[in-house]
Amino acid sequence: MDRKLYTYFRSSAAWRVRIALAYKGLDYEAVPIHLLRDGGQQRSTDYLALNPQGRVPALLDDGVVLTQSLAICEYLEERYPTPALLPADLLGRARVRSLAQLIACDIHPLNNLIVLQYLKGTLGQSQETADEWYRHWIRQGFAALEQELVRLGSERYCVGDSVTLADLCLVPQVFNAHRFKVDMASYPRIAAIDAHLSSLPAFSQTHPSKQADAE
Amino acid sequence: MDRKLYTYFRSSAAWRVRIALAYKGLDYEAVPIHLLRDGGQQRSTDYLALNPQGRVPALLDDGVVLTQSLAICEYLEERYPTPALLPADLLGRARVRSLAQLIACDIHPLNNLIVLQYLKGTLGQSQETADEWYRHWIRQGFAALEQELVRLGSERYCVGDSVTLADLCLVPQVFNAHRFKVDMASYPRIAAIDAHLSSLPAFSQTHPSKQADAE
Repeated sequence: MDRKLYTYFRSSAAWRVRIALAYKGLDYEAVPIHLLRDGGQQRSTDYLALNPQGRVPALLDDGVVLTQSLAICEYLEERYPTPALLPADLLGRARVRSLAQLIACDIHPLNNLIVLQYLKGTLGQSQETADEWYRHWIRQGFAALEQELVRLGSERYCVGDSVTLADLCLVPQVFNAHRFKVDMASYPRIAAIDAHLSSLPAFSQTHPSKQADAE
Repeated sequence: MDRKLYTYFRSSAAWRVRIALAYKGLDYEAVPIHLLRDGGQQRSTDYLALNPQGRVPALLDDGVVLTQSLAICEYLEERYPTPALLPADLLGRARVRSLAQLIACDIHPLNNLIVLQYLKGTLGQSQETADEWYRHWIRQGFAALEQELVRLGSERYCVGDSVTLADLCLVPQVFNAHRFKVDMASYPRIAAIDAHLSSLPAFSQTHPSKQADAE
């Protein structure tokens, strides 16, 4: 297999790319990078030679290593345009990218493993404080996301009538919210869209629990 | 003026969009949103009606409000393609977006004002701890960015021979690094590219110190 995805079953950034690949029907070999084992395999010499950013996912496609989940998804969209993950119209594309970035920039980076490690290690915060920190940024981001989705009249997808880059950010983020016991009652639109998307093969088949490295 | 940019002089996300607009020669009216005054004008009822995310920047273009800095820049690139802010080739575009996201996802969200407010307020951390937190994420991100730029052979621009989305993320981030006294000696490539870019009108004329709301 020429295409390899360096992934960790529970990484939401990796899951975004797994969904994009599955949705576009692109085969790949999954190479598990365990973010906790061996002090974090993403910090191994071998992996850093491949991806100096020391994060997952990374995609090897045609002999080239690509990094950053949304940059990889935009690359896949340009290289394999059908089925599309961005609407055809300018405004729709801007809406999709804005919602994707609301999740990928405003929520997810604050809940990253290395941030929780810094809070608990360097700053000596308790597990409970770290968990509440995690929930705080999800609640803040979801409050804005919920309003945006209501304004857009979204019911089954974030934008329009098909899967977009925003959807493949939403489902992994809701998975994280459930994992950290965020009460989803305040976000009925997010929950409804998540429920619909989760029934689609590209989402269900790439779920963390279905990965070879799942624990 | 039909085009309005809701901006704060010191916001690096707003500065990215100011650079994109200037580089493309697009006029706009700057509407200052003070992130600290009045408990944060981005949380005012009027602004939240415009942008439920309660953040800057937001761009009003053709009667439509667009949010999230990189989504706005991609919109500007699609709507006003010349001069380009993305390379023509697939791989170059992926490289540019990856470097932009390294800054916009891995560094900047952790240093956002609301995160520092949470650290000092809710978690009761000192100003010194918050400042060190700020520097920590810049140092970690810049170490990876420096390696990426060296690998790409970048000297005057992040990617290729012209300004891209990666450059308009880099300069505001280096400005923040200087502001928080990060020692740039370890990042000679970033510093060299920043020095070159900072001499270009689209960057120098949009500098925080040149804004009407500068303090």
